[in-house]
Amino acid sequence: MRRSIFFSLSFVLAASSALAQGTLDKSVTDRFDAALSSQDQIGWLKMMASEPNQVGSPHDKLIADWELQQFRKFGWDAHIETFQVLFSTPVSEAVEMGSFKATLQEKPIPGDTSSTAKDYALPAYLAYQGDGDVTAPLVYVNYGTQEDYKQLARLGISVKGKIVIARYGQVWRGVKPLLAYKHGAIGCLIYSDPADDGYAEGATYPEGPMRPPQGIQRGSAMDMMLYPGDPLTPGVGATADAKRLTHETAPSVLKIPALPISYADAQVLLKAMTGPVAPQNWRGALPITYRVGPGSQPVHLEVKSSWDLQPAYDVIAQIKGSQFPDQWVVRGNHHDGWVEGASDPLSGQVALLDEAKAMGALLKTGWRPKRTIVYTSWDGEEPMLLGSTEWAEQHAAELKKKAVLYINTDGNSRGFLRASGNQDLGAFVTKVSESVTDPEANVTVGRRARDRLLTAAGSGPFAAAMKAEASRLEKPGATFPVGAAGSGSDFSPFLDHLGVTTLNLGFGGEAKSGGVYHSRYDTSEHHLRFIDPGLVYGKVLSETVGHAVLAAAGNGLPLSSPADFARAMKGDITKVEKLADSQREAAQKQKMLLASNAYAVAADPTEPHGNPVAMSAVPAIDFKPLDAAGATLTKSAAAYEAALAAHGQALPAADAAKLNGLMQTINQTLLYEGGLPGRPWYKNLIYAPGRYVGYGVTTLPGVTEAITEERWSDVPKFIALTSDALKAYAARLDQATALLQSSKG
Amino acid sequence: MRRSIFFSLSFVLAASSALAQGTLDKSVTDRFDAALSSQDQIGWLKMMASEPNQVGSPHDKLIADWELQQFRKFGWDAHIETFQVLFSTPVSEAVEMGSFKATLQEKPIPGDTSSTAKDYALPAYLAYQGDGDVTAPLVYVNYGTQEDYKQLARLGISVKGKIVIARYGQVWRGVKPLLAYKHGAIGCLIYSDPADDGYAEGATYPEGPMRPPQGIQRGSAMDMMLYPGDPLTPGVGATADAKRLTHETAPSVLKIPALPISYADAQVLLKAMTGPVAPQNWRGALPITYRVGPGSQPVHLEVKSSWDLQPAYDVIAQIKGSQFPDQWVVRGNHHDGWVEGASDPLSGQVALLDEAKAMGALLKTGWRPKRTIVYTSWDGEEPMLLGSTEWAEQHAAELKKKAVLYINTDGNSRGFLRASGNQDLGAFVTKVSESVTDPEANVTVGRRARDRLLTAAGSGPFAAAMKAEASRLEKPGATFPVGAAGSGSDFSPFLDHLGVTTLNLGFGGEAKSGGVYHSRYDTSEHHLRFIDPGLVYGKVLSETVGHAVLAAAGNGLPLSSPADFARAMKGDITKVEKLADSQREAAQKQKMLLASNAYAVAADPTEPHGNPVAMSAVPAIDFKPLDAAGATLTKSAAAYEAALAAHGQALPAADAAKLNGLMQTINQTLLYEGGLPGRPWYKNLIYAPGRYVGYGVTTLPGVTEAITEERWSDVPKFIALTSDALKAYAARLDQATALLQSSKG
Repeated sequence: MRRSIFFSLSFVLAASSALAQGTLDKSVTDRFDAALSSQDQIGWLKMMASEPNQVGSPHDKLIADWELQQFRKFGWDAHIETFQVLFSTPVSEAVEMGSFKATLQEKPIPGDTSSTAKDYALPAYLAYQGDGDVTAPLVYVNYGTQEDYKQLARLGISVKGKIVIARYGQVWRGVKPLLAYKHGAIGCLIYSDPADDGYAEGATYPEGPMRPPQGIQRGSAMDMMLYPGDPLTPGVGATADAKRLTHETAPSVLKIPALPISYADAQVLLKAMTGPVAPQNWRGALPITYRVGPGSQPVHLEVKSSWDLQPAYDVIAQIKGSQFPDQWVVRGNHHDGWVEGASDPLSGQVALLDEAKAMGALLKTGWRPKRTIVYTSWDGEEPMLLGSTEWAEQHAAELKKKAVLYINTDGNSRGFLRASGNQDLGAFVTKVSESVTDPEANVTVGRRARDRLLTAAGSGPFAAAMKAEASRLEKPGATFPVGAAGSGSDFSPFLDHLGVTTLNLGFGGEAKSGGVYHSRYDTSEHHLRFIDPGLVYGKVLSETVGHAVLAAAGNGLPLSSPADFARAMKGDITKVEKLADSQREAAQKQKMLLASNAYAVAADPTEPHGNPVAMSAVPAIDFKPLDAAGATLTKSAAAYEAALAAHGQALPAADAAKLNGLMQTINQTLLYEGGLPGRPWYKNLIYAPGRYVGYGVTTLPGVTEAITEERWSDVPKFIALTSDALKAYAARLDQATALLQSSKG
Repeated sequence: MRRSIFFSLSFVLAASSALAQGTLDKSVTDRFDAALSSQDQIGWLKMMASEPNQVGSPHDKLIADWELQQFRKFGWDAHIETFQVLFSTPVSEAVEMGSFKATLQEKPIPGDTSSTAKDYALPAYLAYQGDGDVTAPLVYVNYGTQEDYKQLARLGISVKGKIVIARYGQVWRGVKPLLAYKHGAIGCLIYSDPADDGYAEGATYPEGPMRPPQGIQRGSAMDMMLYPGDPLTPGVGATADAKRLTHETAPSVLKIPALPISYADAQVLLKAMTGPVAPQNWRGALPITYRVGPGSQPVHLEVKSSWDLQPAYDVIAQIKGSQFPDQWVVRGNHHDGWVEGASDPLSGQVALLDEAKAMGALLKTGWRPKRTIVYTSWDGEEPMLLGSTEWAEQHAAELKKKAVLYINTDGNSRGFLRASGNQDLGAFVTKVSESVTDPEANVTVGRRARDRLLTAAGSGPFAAAMKAEASRLEKPGATFPVGAAGSGSDFSPFLDHLGVTTLNLGFGGEAKSGGVYHSRYDTSEHHLRFIDPGLVYGKVLSETVGHAVLAAAGNGLPLSSPADFARAMKGDITKVEKLADSQREAAQKQKMLLASNAYAVAADPTEPHGNPVAMSAVPAIDFKPLDAAGATLTKSAAAYEAALAAHGQALPAADAAKLNGLMQTINQTLLYEGGLPGRPWYKNLIYAPGRYVGYGVTTLPGVTEAITEERWSDVPKFIALTSDALKAYAARLDQATALLQSSKG
């Protein structure tokens, strides 16, 4: 392995004590790596992705049973835990305009397993949409975000009583019909614009990786920002005898019908639109004039579903820890897809299995982890984290007591390591990222990710995050950037609901996998041709996650680098303060402009127009408690890291156990049992999926959303709660520091 | 005229002394307004736009002769001044790929004068491109800007020996083949992407205003950033006996062949491209995968032109001033178009004529301006400011002595008043803008422009300028925003070469005129249907410019509000300092990343890639002289405005003459006779068209471009020269202030 001199000199750990942040034993990881096999992964991928495998399908059950056998064959103690979950599937569906009928089908592609998909493959649909039969004019709402509805108000256009058509992108799918419903729409179509993942991005399948005209993105339309998992059993495991809501009363089920359509079909509907030309940033890559509507021709949308309970099969496997059997390192990836799901989720699932196989090989040589390792293969992630959420809810008390770390992966791609989750894992991820060599660049995956961030041009979706991190990463000793996480994969119940320390890992940034996302064309052929040929990065993912698991399970000491977390919090506190200031300024300016009729004066009278939605005045906000908590956290974190570094190699076993007892559950200090306003399932005061963003994280959500949603009495309340949480985290650190300082090790 | 209370209270002049910034006599402007007529303008527009009217065409001469008669009929003293200018026109041209031949023709549209255009209409071409016959693969270079070539380097793609294809937009047309040539390309195609002015923006002509698939933007490809006007006679008038270069030796003539093409034709060429997918912000609205190339199929480009001298007919008319005949208020608009030129330039030309008619009516009632009014109808603006530049060069000495103000307009549209030029005209434009009522909103055009700036969403091409001005405009007493000006219309020789105080005015922002720009479809039918129905804004333009001329010519006092200029300079100085800092930082960062091989490490090995073009280290730069000059200017401007305000209404005639003598030529203190490096024709140290931007202005160009072009020895030189110029301007103000303070008026 070649490492440049520059890198060796400048990119070293800030805190390099062997005590801290997990231990990597090269004699173990080398043997582990040697047992991994891209060929095995390819074979498994082809088998698992050979048929549709959604919740309740025969192949989904077959995969769970087969995985169970694999784990047992590898030497793990494994079982299947089954939940009974609501899973809506379409009985009939239609989108029509005059004589035009949308296809709602994806024709198979010869030479691709998509052509052999069994007839139990689901047609295009959105799980947990609300059945209905509606006819109304269309309004095009761009991505269907809150910003887009503000723009609609300026255009003087209402969606009340209309069917909206939104394009995929920017916010999570489920936000689009939810906001449409909240604005009075009676139906919602979502299509994949070729600008976002079609021909504009590259050649379309089968010539290239991108979405063909008839491709359709399925998905969940659950209001998972309220709570994920089974809609009928919020907060408790969906066991056979659990108390249940009905699908009509479940608040996370959508109230209006909604369907996804292809861009071939969307083009027909959009081309027929009338009304004003869409604003520049609303236009996609179809060769038409995008118009906002309302369309002159009514559209008929009809969906009817079955609302059955289905079994969700979680495969749970473990290797008991030799010294700390009640300290669990949990690692998961889901096994259900929307059709064949080769990229999403099976490319991550086969990496998980390969890790399990390699750990099984280690077991046979007498190796044992100090902590217990729990591998989980989740079912029902796609409908919205069903298997993981129900398991986490069912085992909540035990997990809060025993889980040291939850590591998640999902569909994997090619390129650069990305990490998100609890941000006190920076040093831990750094160690792991320096133990794995990138096969394309022959440097560590840590250095490659860093070079990517530092050299990326200032555009594209990651530009803002890149810029924020770039100046930090230029400095020697910078830890690997761990982003804040919202939702969108199985880590959510651990991070957002339980406060278990959580890490989400994956590789991406080079291949274009979006084009077949949640479509019939997410096949093993597609994945192996365009996303990760030879599953080279499948093996790199196994190495990376495997090393993380081995490091975390290899000792009984804390993983936390709290200075990274304190730095992130400082940034987030500044951000929310700036948000309040800019919102106050905008509200004042808007009030003045409304009073002087300026919007009407500036409007083109030949086009529809309207005043903006009136903002409420932003009161004076006392952020001092939050500033003080941030400062306390920074100080406590520095003291803890110094005490840890001062300790060198050794700590008496009793002190180590005490230290770990304090630190293992430290991220649970960030929870508030009352939860976020209106969505008590979400208890983490630092991280949550944005209420109207979806997968994307909103940091300090109690405070941030109280401001953006103009709930002024919640602002001081959540400033106090959030400050208390940060102070509780700092107090826990202070206890640990005192322990370290008094220990004779 | 209704004015809201809010507006009356808050949007008043900072310096309201009648002495300052021109006087508006309502008894005169009311009579002037009453004589204006949209109906007259419509009739003239139809006649003047009835046939192609490029330089050298029969209809171009007919317009000049007819306008001469009109001026005389109105009571003006008028003549035609003729120059002999180089004007290249195509003899033969071809763009071919395999069996495909680009059309290079715009088919006429039935029911439109485009269908009756005489056969002397020019085909699609670029004036002053360099004849040639080349065959090479294509490379797509996005807009063909400097930034785009930097991106190409990162993609590891060279244009050396290739033909580039660029889309119109972002920078001026002529920059694209020039940069292509400088990067080693042997030919250049430019096409109009539907994203920029085709179907993405709205329905295409004749259904709507936007560019149809076969529409082509003609234009000049002269290197006007070197010098505009006749390529053979830089710096002197192109009289019959002037000393001339040849077209082969003229440095402003392009060295490679270049042609504009339609998007119907471009789609064929672009669809056949191979190579990497174009970066996201390189993609237009064609339904294809945009690729960078090089294309696998060679393209054949051939252009042959005639290089004749042609007559350019400037119509010059004047009304002698009653008190100050040697103080000239000059106002111009060109009369030549690329085909029929209804929007560009004739919509502005008929407003000019209407003003001349109304002033003629005033003349008949015994009114006389105090200063001399000179109206000019320029020929040959389209090939690149031929008529105006030659006239300004020919009369340079007289203009520098006598011109008080040059007011320019060009094609007019519908919507909001926009002003640019010398930024000490803020108070003057404010007065004018408050004297004209907007017909759509029934408020003053000043207030409407302000409300537009304050309410505009934060996107689109004017977002940055809007944001910068918005917070200033919220405050009571803010003057009308006068933007800095570069080039792109006939004001350039006055502003950039002579230092005559210059103002460019026009209305726009509501109609979409870009779609027929420089095409056969820029017809009176198009203009009257889509751009300014009823020429309502034609009359508003006449009122606005007419009032400006009447105000400037109505007294013998200065027009300057130097505090506006000082504020602009403060902003520009800060801007260039920040530019140096960010460029220094970027160069340091790049050096570090190149040394560590980071670009290669971060690159996808399956795609072409390269290191960025190496930046030179930015030395320490002493900006203190510029800061000091800016501070001096701010102080002197405040003192002058205070002395003027303190004076109230009266100033003895002798002092007024002295004051005007000092202030009339104050903007000439901003010139440096040596000119800008490598382009001595451009003498203004504050404003110039950006060397590789074109029409767009670069402020403090001597300093700014020395930094961006890494000419480090020029940086202190031009900091000194620019500081001296600002100090000279301030010193002139100090003289005026002393005069005002000592005057007994």
